[in-house]
Amino acid sequence: MPDFAEPLQRLIDEFKRLPGVGQKSAQRLAFHVLRSPREQAAKLSAALLDVKDNLGVCADCGNISDAELCPFCRDPHRDKSVICVIEEPHNILPIETTRTFEGLYHVLGGAISPLRGIGPEQLNMKPLLDRVARGDVKEIIVATNPTVEGEATAVYLSRLLKPMNLKITRIAMGIPVGSDLEFADQVTMSKSLENRREM
Amino acid sequence: MPDFAEPLQRLIDEFKRLPGVGQKSAQRLAFHVLRSPREQAAKLSAALLDVKDNLGVCADCGNISDAELCPFCRDPHRDKSVICVIEEPHNILPIETTRTFEGLYHVLGGAISPLRGIGPEQLNMKPLLDRVARGDVKEIIVATNPTVEGEATAVYLSRLLKPMNLKITRIAMGIPVGSDLEFADQVTMSKSLENRREM
Repeated sequence: MPDFAEPLQRLIDEFKRLPGVGQKSAQRLAFHVLRSPREQAAKLSAALLDVKDNLGVCADCGNISDAELCPFCRDPHRDKSVICVIEEPHNILPIETTRTFEGLYHVLGGAISPLRGIGPEQLNMKPLLDRVARGDVKEIIVATNPTVEGEATAVYLSRLLKPMNLKITRIAMGIPVGSDLEFADQVTMSKSLENRREM
Repeated sequence: MPDFAEPLQRLIDEFKRLPGVGQKSAQRLAFHVLRSPREQAAKLSAALLDVKDNLGVCADCGNISDAELCPFCRDPHRDKSVICVIEEPHNILPIETTRTFEGLYHVLGGAISPLRGIGPEQLNMKPLLDRVARGDVKEIIVATNPTVEGEATAVYLSRLLKPMNLKITRIAMGIPVGSDLEFADQVTMSKSLENRREM
């Protein structure tokens, strides 16, 4: 006999697919949904589909966007002469929270990883060259993760951009190597931006 | 400027309503959904509504059920002479995993709590008396939580059932197996001494 009625079991199974959610957490979440008003479950249900259906990618920088250009690329107050290159859209938040960066972003969509078959062609690199070629850009800050893949990507990028007569900088290794931008605290992230070095 | 595109922000907000999910976890979950296939988000989305729309309550015991009777009440192999009374449906699982209980359940839907305005009338108690009145029941195991409210409910129930010529038992309270006396609180230690058994 199953432990739970079928719809409940299915909800538990679906919750378990989420990262960091095990059997016990999934049960707790499912029973919470069972107890809470239908309206609340409906909102989460709708938000899940909305994210898949109504979000696209910024035509300029590759960030997540609900319009052709993302809020950063649309904003006339951002400094178009500096572009901060990151691996994933969620890397933007820790940089924004420092309130020290006024430039634009460029989202690669990952890092070079021969082991996982990800080369420069799989990443959003060509559009970065196009942006630079348009001529406004004076500095590229390479803020890929301080991991093997992120470093490899940084080195590759710097070689690619070198001939284009730019200042190319790398965020400082104030962040513990092997970690992820997502886990950096505000001060470390600020230091890391402040201590960027020319490559 | 908001940190995230609007649909993404909304999904993060909805995830944050779930118990034990803070800002960072909600972001991690939302970005996971963003990266995973639409089909997976659709499944979770549907499961959320399914639980609210297709689950009801067992007519006999008050357990969650997708049919008139829950799987336990339907099962002809369960012992109908013993009923284990619990506060919530999710209290069934820890009991079932022991594989030592073969009887039926009765779900009260909470515990008596004057502070929160929950009296016996708000709980699923009358149907329990009806089940006992039908005559098959020989023992009631009161397995409400060992809290102030759970204890009050247990005492109330035992007084209510006393005239009906039944064996009424309460689950034992004591020091958890594998634990150390050192970590036992005063009340638990008292209970443990009080409930000592001859060996």
